[in-house]
Amino acid sequence: MDLRNKTLCASGFHAPERGKIEILDEVLIDIGADGTIAAMHRPSDPNYRTIREAREESGELVTLPVGSYLLPGFVDLHVHAPQYPQLGSALDVPLEVWLQKYTFPLEARYRDLAFAKRSYGLLVDDMLANGTTTALYFATVHQDATRSLADICLEKGQRALIGKVAMDNADECPDYYRDATPDDAIEGTRALIDYINTHPENGEKRVLPVITPRFVPSCTDATLEGLGALARECGCHVQTHCSESDWAHGYVLSRYGVTDTEALDRFGLLGRRTVLAHANFLTDHDMDKVREREAAVAHCPLSNVYFANAVFPLKAALDKGVHVGLGTDISGGPSASMLENCRGAILMSRALESGVDPNRDADARASYGPAQIDFRDAFYIATAGGGVALDLPIGQFTPGYLFDAIVIDTKAPKGSVRLFDEFDSGEQILQKIINTASKPNIATAWVGGTNLRLP
Amino acid sequence: MDLRNKTLCASGFHAPERGKIEILDEVLIDIGADGTIAAMHRPSDPNYRTIREAREESGELVTLPVGSYLLPGFVDLHVHAPQYPQLGSALDVPLEVWLQKYTFPLEARYRDLAFAKRSYGLLVDDMLANGTTTALYFATVHQDATRSLADICLEKGQRALIGKVAMDNADECPDYYRDATPDDAIEGTRALIDYINTHPENGEKRVLPVITPRFVPSCTDATLEGLGALARECGCHVQTHCSESDWAHGYVLSRYGVTDTEALDRFGLLGRRTVLAHANFLTDHDMDKVREREAAVAHCPLSNVYFANAVFPLKAALDKGVHVGLGTDISGGPSASMLENCRGAILMSRALESGVDPNRDADARASYGPAQIDFRDAFYIATAGGGVALDLPIGQFTPGYLFDAIVIDTKAPKGSVRLFDEFDSGEQILQKIINTASKPNIATAWVGGTNLRLP
Ligand SMILES: [Zn+2]
Ligand SMILES: [Zn+2]
Repeated sequence: MDLRNKTLCASGFHAPERGKIEILDEVLIDIGADGTIAAMHRPSDPNYRTIREAREESGELVTLPVGSYLLPGFVDLHVHAPQYPQLGSALDVPLEVWLQKYTFPLEARYRDLAFAKRSYGLLVDDMLANGTTTALYFATVHQDATRSLADICLEKGQRALIGKVAMDNADECPDYYRDATPDDAIEGTRALIDYINTHPENGEKRVLPVITPRFVPSCTDATLEGLGALARECGCHVQTHCSESDWAHGYVLSRYGVTDTEALDRFGLLGRRTVLAHANFLTDHDMDKVREREAAVAHCPLSNVYFANAVFPLKAALDKGVHVGLGTDISGGPSASMLENCRGAILMSRALESGVDPNRDADARASYGPAQIDFRDAFYIATAGGGVALDLPIGQFTPGYLFDAIVIDTKAPKGSVRLFDEFDSGEQILQKIINTASKPNIATAWVGGTNLRLP
Repeated sequence: MDLRNKTLCASGFHAPERGKIEILDEVLIDIGADGTIAAMHRPSDPNYRTIREAREESGELVTLPVGSYLLPGFVDLHVHAPQYPQLGSALDVPLEVWLQKYTFPLEARYRDLAFAKRSYGLLVDDMLANGTTTALYFATVHQDATRSLADICLEKGQRALIGKVAMDNADECPDYYRDATPDDAIEGTRALIDYINTHPENGEKRVLPVITPRFVPSCTDATLEGLGALARECGCHVQTHCSESDWAHGYVLSRYGVTDTEALDRFGLLGRRTVLAHANFLTDHDMDKVREREAAVAHCPLSNVYFANAVFPLKAALDKGVHVGLGTDISGGPSASMLENCRGAILMSRALESGVDPNRDADARASYGPAQIDFRDAFYIATAGGGVALDLPIGQFTPGYLFDAIVIDTKAPKGSVRLFDEFDSGEQILQKIINTASKPNIATAWVGGTNLRLP
């Protein structure tokens, strides 16, 4: 049910700040005509009972059933929309081979608009069914296909940030799939920005354009410079890959003599609305720079095992105050589920802390130091952390924020959460949701108070 | 539909040997009155067409729909049935603390038979819904509750191997939860064996008893000796934990001056029907010994990240010819899904090969050496490998084997597999199933040709 101009009575969870889970117990959430949260009333508030009765009488009260829990919708901070057809496959070779062998040929097919529409439609359906209410998308170099992704997100109601990929470096990009010139890359980006900003269905700015240099190796200096200038001009979001693998990190060092972070900063591509995918090999100095610029990292824990060959030090970044959100990295990561990626983030943080090599004694094995995070941090980066990263008022139930939310039905048929009344209450319920819930448990999704159709 | 005395026409996959995926393309599988596979006819066989038409005419042919794939049912080689209520929680402390703080108190509750029946009923339902047609269960010390687990498996049709846990060492087990004496541990084990072997509903031996010393630290020498003698006497399966964590491995070394493997062997507990859970810290010599005895390892990749603090060298064990199957280790591992554990096995094998510490350069990070496995090995250990480990004719579609099987419906509502006709065929389909399928995709399960009700 649409919730604009309604009040929702719900139990659930959000993490307005890192390390702080707030348990919501039959709170009333007033949602305005514009889809933002107007007020939240807790049972401990003196006027709670009065408000609840008034809303009930006026027919404005919507109540979640017992066993259902409200969470902020997931914010997926790194998705390659065109790679969806190879999700769960093409995982056998390193990044630089993977691009040429599997990924560029697949992305090149999006010159076929009919194919693009079919594939993008399935992707957006499946992400919504997984509870992902906001996604930051890399599309392809193609103008028409990328516009169709914007159309599809607007039609299906997903909040989306979408970039036409800029990639024009003939040394690293194949002839059959690249921008022919820096001008194509830059003016193509500008054309997409215009298309999205003037889209007749986009009055609420539910879809936003993103300046998207694929990664430094894919781009010529002219393109990186031009996109930096465009970022200053339009104030748009920027996304790219940063120090993902030993190879990619080394490539930039040898081309510029500085790290990705430093190079991006020099090109004017590291700002408050920049999202750096992966960032596994940030130096301490890089991390300080990212924090200073208030840019963000899209942590992609599953993808990193396949393509980065090291674990991103999530705890260190969060402890330092760096903005971090969670990404599936479809299809570098084999799962479209943010819940599976939450579990991946927890799992790999523990592997980083304990180490993995059974032939080393415990001390030598644990070479890195403290790194563990738990379900609380995983939930934070999947929701509020993503909102902070994007500089958008989403990911938490706070007045002034957009009501982007999902319902976890712990009793859903084919679901995978089992709560036991005698053991499970409070945060423990959230822990079980993060560790065991799956698509069938995602019963409802709203974006800006609008109820979406989940396939 | 029950398939005894029927012929199934299906496409699908099995892995009769490690490293060899056989693609089944509209094969005919004849299933006998006893639930075993009588014959398999491939389209290339000269009499295929004749047989197919004859079965169709006689009404004995059952055909899977397009988009559905037949797999062997999953064999979960390590499950603590009583721990199901804490699945997805209690993951914050090391093994030796976890036992005392969370696990022994929970297991102690199974003295309450009503609680046991409710919890075990939910567990078996959920495992079947996840496609686990065979499970090797640790129960608790309690006779009545453990018997009820056997009853429930027989009633619901899951193939199960069940052990009353033996644990009588007062130094490591709490007063409120242990066998009072070695005699209680040994005779309690014998009583369960008798109960299962003479159960009136167990004519087909679908449930088997297992001698189950919890792990060396939990048991006195007298109990280990007595259980070893019982194993020789009855020829039953044996299960225990082996060299799981630094702590557990070190405990046995300091108690006996030898490793777990060596100690278990001396007590007569290491034989063809022994399953060793975890085995992360096996020495080379241990691994040789396990292979020599034709015992098996239950690899529990997700649990190992939480409680073993190192990755089991799966590839090395398989390369050496050690029997290995896959286990969820409910609830040391946070997932009841064998598919999620397949993904965990792949993921952690890659982390072992590449290493995890981004502060080390690639060579130093990758300290262990070659370790990667892929979906083929994960599928093998989840099916045929489990059958070999248990010395049971299950896990593959080979004449003489029991027809224990599941159907993956790739088009199921709320499912998570997306096949694209233009990209996906052959092994690629299996790869996507292993990497992306989930409970809603599991449409049907048979044990010994009998169709089970999936909740
Ligand atoms: Zn990416
Ligand atoms: Zn165990």
